[in-house]
Order: sequence, then structure tokens, then C-alpha cells
Amino acid sequence: MDRRSFLKSSAIAGVAAGGLAAPAIASGHVQLTMVTSWGRGLAGVFDAAAKCAESINAMSGGSLVVDVKAAGELVGAFEVFDAVTSGQADMYHAADYYFVGQHPGYAFFTGVPFGMTATELNNWYYHGKGHDYHETLGEIFGLKSFLGGNTGTQAGGWFRKEINGPEDFDGLKFRMPGLGGEALGLLGASVQNIPGAEVYQALASGALDGTEWIGPWADEKAGFQEITKFYYTAGFHEPAAGLSLVTNREVFNGLSAEHQKMIEIAAGHANVWNLSQYLYNNGAALQRLQSEGVKVLKFPDSVWDAFGSASAELYAKYSEDDLFAEILADYQTTLRESSGWLTNSTGEFRAQRDRVIG
Amino acid sequence: MDRRSFLKSSAIAGVAAGGLAAPAIASGHVQLTMVTSWGRGLAGVFDAAAKCAESINAMSGGSLVVDVKAAGELVGAFEVFDAVTSGQADMYHAADYYFVGQHPGYAFFTGVPFGMTATELNNWYYHGKGHDYHETLGEIFGLKSFLGGNTGTQAGGWFRKEINGPEDFDGLKFRMPGLGGEALGLLGASVQNIPGAEVYQALASGALDGTEWIGPWADEKAGFQEITKFYYTAGFHEPAAGLSLVTNREVFNGLSAEHQKMIEIAAGHANVWNLSQYLYNNGAALQRLQSEGVKVLKFPDSVWDAFGSASAELYAKYSEDDLFAEILADYQTTLRESSGWLTNSTGEFRAQRDRVIG
Repeated sequence: MDRRSFLKSSAIAGVAAGGLAAPAIASGHVQLTMVTSWGRGLAGVFDAAAKCAESINAMSGGSLVVDVKAAGELVGAFEVFDAVTSGQADMYHAADYYFVGQHPGYAFFTGVPFGMTATELNNWYYHGKGHDYHETLGEIFGLKSFLGGNTGTQAGGWFRKEINGPEDFDGLKFRMPGLGGEALGLLGASVQNIPGAEVYQALASGALDGTEWIGPWADEKAGFQEITKFYYTAGFHEPAAGLSLVTNREVFNGLSAEHQKMIEIAAGHANVWNLSQYLYNNGAALQRLQSEGVKVLKFPDSVWDAFGSASAELYAKYSEDDLFAEILADYQTTLRESSGWLTNSTGEFRAQRDRVIG
Repeated sequence: MDRRSFLKSSAIAGVAAGGLAAPAIASGHVQLTMVTSWGRGLAGVFDAAAKCAESINAMSGGSLVVDVKAAGELVGAFEVFDAVTSGQADMYHAADYYFVGQHPGYAFFTGVPFGMTATELNNWYYHGKGHDYHETLGEIFGLKSFLGGNTGTQAGGWFRKEINGPEDFDGLKFRMPGLGGEALGLLGASVQNIPGAEVYQALASGALDGTEWIGPWADEKAGFQEITKFYYTAGFHEPAAGLSLVTNREVFNGLSAEHQKMIEIAAGHANVWNLSQYLYNNGAALQRLQSEGVKVLKFPDSVWDAFGSASAELYAKYSEDDLFAEILADYQTTLRESSGWLTNSTGEFRAQRDRVIG
């Protein structure tokens, strides 16, 4: 698979289909329509999109107004990418790994198997080449992208029964997007990618045997504990889950320098605000889930080893694409360096804090 | 020690001394003077202040211009608090634990012994009561405060010889600010609080036996490896080191809602941008230091235990102040909850990542 095949399948098609609508300008004000992959009830993710818009609208004093649409209000959850490349909408807020079909490189801006935690992703994004590669993809597809949220290390997910070995994934109907989902498919799972707002129904109807979503706080609000009782806290698939605030590139270039900067800075603020929203709420939510009879578990080493083999196979496959291979190599270099220091400093401190004050 | 004693010693004195100068307004533009605790050459910390100003100036298109002064250009590194409470300057960028003499509660917004890492601090600040307590202190002293940077978990510091037990701190002339420094004093160290830009000279002249500063990247740029060769990576004293962007409260209240929001959002962006700046650069810097003959070490458990006892004594002393005790109790509740989830998710993932892919 090479870069041209992605171009053919999506970006050029998108531009050809639409042509670009200029953003609505009324009495000197610019209005941008933001479509999202989020239902209004989805804890945290919709909040991150709304926080971006709220900051921009307040800073601009109404000279730039972003109007947020939930999934399905203008386009479906997974149609936001094409809607913005084609100019049907001006902006989207989503997890960019939903768009690995457009280009697998988009996986890095949410999370990839055995990849970066949120802290590590920010290191690469703001000071390594992360944002540069987001720009490279944006130039291909006509988009201007910034990280604008993060839901943290994703829980391993919800199951109807305990997972004792990799063979338990064979034939399992499981919801998991991105490269993680593809890796699970290599273990024999029947992997489905379903928008967040539709997962509860799929689980309740038996269309799914299990699902991952985010973490205790968001998962509790989604109600998965009403159906499944086995909850795995750590997963291999998304050590971080970055969310992106993305503007049609021609629309972005047509904005004033002040409005462009407001979008960039509001996205950065939402990034730290959103991650901490999840991490603040997850601890208490996990305690509530346990008090409702949810059994909290860790995958055994044999399962982690199988996740490792499947992930390696997947990286080899996608590395046939030159751009994916280039991003992966750079990503792994930053990961090794920044991970080492974190182990020596924050890791060592946390171990001593646990030992000394409990 | 009670809240009134702090009021008497600083805030009221400050307001009485100065009266408030209105920020300079020329041809419809507002100009604010930001004083900082940072020399222009100090890696990361000065950058964070400059990034806040750069974002605000760009978003406002020049309608709000922040002019950044390095330490000593208008007032000294540790005089910025009084300069802003008195109205001599409009804003400061500093580590708020420099001002524990004004109120010990300010320690929480940088870092406290055995306290929160940067991730945990953000949880408490943006979604727990952290920012509310920053406001409580700001109302006392006439300030409007936002986190606007973080230098991460501070390294244990630079020594001329190995530290084999707590007795090695007895009589040691060491630079460490905040509550950490006071705790070290309880172990018999002669603790000095010296602005960053002056530490190298103090170390070179023998006025200091050792120092902590930030971490490998900033410490290497400061040049401490030219004088001392024993470097401890993890320390007890500042598990995070938050930096604050603080505006005189009357000045802030006199700004437009748009300009107020720009200050808040620019500070949040600088918070994530600055932490990742350190964490991106620390790994490679540590390798360079080692190649220059620096010996990288961990404190033995006996030293961590002594740090623990000294810190407990200090918390007991400061808890005689009602507000400090109230903030501490709330801080510890959030710390316990969010730390538990991080161990179960990111911690477990990192352990498996190290095991599976090395």
C-alpha cells in the first residue's frame, strides 16, 4: 500500500466531490460548523469538542463563532473526515485513528499498540516531529490539525467472561477501532468499529460480546456494567487516545492570523484540560463499578505476549507504506528516549512514594 | 501561624505601599508588563513565560500586548510577587512556591514533598479544587492565577560526593526552595534559596556544596556538570514543578472578557507545551551528561525514609494554618484517587510494554 492509493481513495475524491464552501460570514463575523464523532451524552469526548468551541468563541468575542454538531446532527460519527475534506463542514473533532482507512499514519495521533502514553505523545507532538507529521497528512487531505483532547490510557475493556489466554479472543465479537482492533483480528476476534453512541445497544442486543470504550468514568456513564461484569483496566491498544481539532485547510488559511492562533491555542488548552478530566474522575468511578459487582482484572502475560506478536505483524504490514514507516521510526525514537527518563524520574519517585507514605 | 499573620506581613503591606497603576493604554491597545523569576538564558522556564506572552499577543492581534521582563530587568527574581500585588508590574511568571513566605499554601501550585506529579496536579487543578484554592489565595493577595507551565518531576540534584545515608546531608550547603528545602533543613542541611540564574556561580565559588535545579536538559544548559559529578535523578521534593501566570487582580478585572479568556487559555496551552518541552529533551541530555563522566544515581531507601519523616514533620507544622490544612486534606484526597487509577492503567501498561517489547 503506498501513499498514492490513499490519495486516490479519499482526498482527491473528497475535493472533487465538493468544492469548497466559504465559511458563513455575517455582519463581520465568521461562523464555522464543527462536526464531531461524539454523541452529546458521551462523557469527556463531547466535552473536549465543546471546550474548544467555548474557548474560541469567548476569546474572539463573537468575531469567530464555532457551532458544534453532535454525531448524526449533520453527518455520521465516522463521516466527519470526508465532510471536512470536501468542505461540507469547516471543522471536525474526532479521534484521528477512525481514519486509518484514509491513511494509516492517522493512527499515531490517537494511539497505537504498545505506543506512547499521553505524556509521551505530547512530547513528540509539541517538541519532536509529531505536529509536523500531522501537517504532512493534512497537506495530503486538505486539513489543518491540532491535538485537542486526550482520554488517557484506554482500559482493556468489558467482557462477559474472564480472559485466561489468547485463545479466548477466537471468534469473540468485540468493538475496537484503529490498529488495536486490527491486531485483535489477528488473534481471531471478529472486530467491529462502532461509534461510541451505538455501542451500548450493540452490546445489549448480543451483536457484540464485549467492547472497549475509554476508562471507568466514561464507561460507567455509557452503562456497560449493566451488561458485562468483567473489566480489564490496562490494554495494549491505546496507551493514549489523542483527539484532534481539525479545520479544512483552505478555510483555515482564509482566517485572520488572530483566529488561526485562537484555534491552535484553544486546542492545546483542551488537550490538557480533557486528559485531566478523565484522570480526575476515573479513580472514584472504578470504586463505584466495583461496588456494583464489576470484577476488575488484568490480562495474563500470555495475552499480552499475543498482543505483542499481533502488533508486530501489523507494524510490518503497514510499514510497506513509506510515510507510515517514516513516522513509525521517528515515533519510536522519541518514545525510547522520553520513556527512559520518565522511568528514572517520575517512575522512581512514584515507587518511593508508594513505599514511604503508602 | 494563621491566615491573618500572612495578610499582615505581605498583602496589606503591598497594597498600602503602591496603590494601583492602570495598565498602559495607547491608541486602543492595552500593554501589560510581565516580570518573571527567570534569567533569559534559563532553558524552559523563560520559554514558558515567553510562550504565554507570544500566544496572547498573537491572539489579540496587538490589542493586548504582554511585555516580558527577565529577572533583574525590572525587579529581582523573588520580588515579582510583591511587584504584582503592589501594582508595580501587571503580571508575573514564576514558581509559586517561591512565595511560601507570603502563604505556605502557594507551595501546592508548584510541588510539595511526596506530592503530585504533573499529571496528578493537572487533575486536581482543572477538575478538583486546585484552581479554586489558587483563587482563594489570589483573593487574599489581589492576584488572578493560572498554571502556565510545568518543569516535571525534579531531579534529586547535583552533589560533590555520593549520598550514602541521611547523615550525609548534615551541614551540607544545598540550594532547594519551597517546602522541600525546609524538609532538607530538618536533616541538618544548610539550605539556601537562590534564583536559578545565580546558582552556577554559587556552586563554582563553593558557597554551595550542591544544588537541585530542574532535570537533565535544563541542568546541562546551566552547566552544573562542569563542577559536580554525582547526579540523582529522582527526588522527593517536587514531583511536579508547576509554574504560574499571575495577573494583578484589579488589572485582570479591568480587562475585556476576551482578553481575560486569552490569558487563561494561553496559560493552559503553555502548561502542556512546557512540560512536554522538558520531557522531550531530558532523555538525550541525560545520555550526554553520562558521556561527560557524570555518575547517575538513586538515593538509597534510608535517605527516602528520612525525607519522609522530615516531610511529615513539616506538614504537621504548616497544618497549624487552617487554610493550609484545608488545602492539604483536599489535595491528598485527589492524589490518592487519581494515583490509584494511574497505577492500574498507565502504570500496568508501561510495565507490560517494557516486558513485551523492551
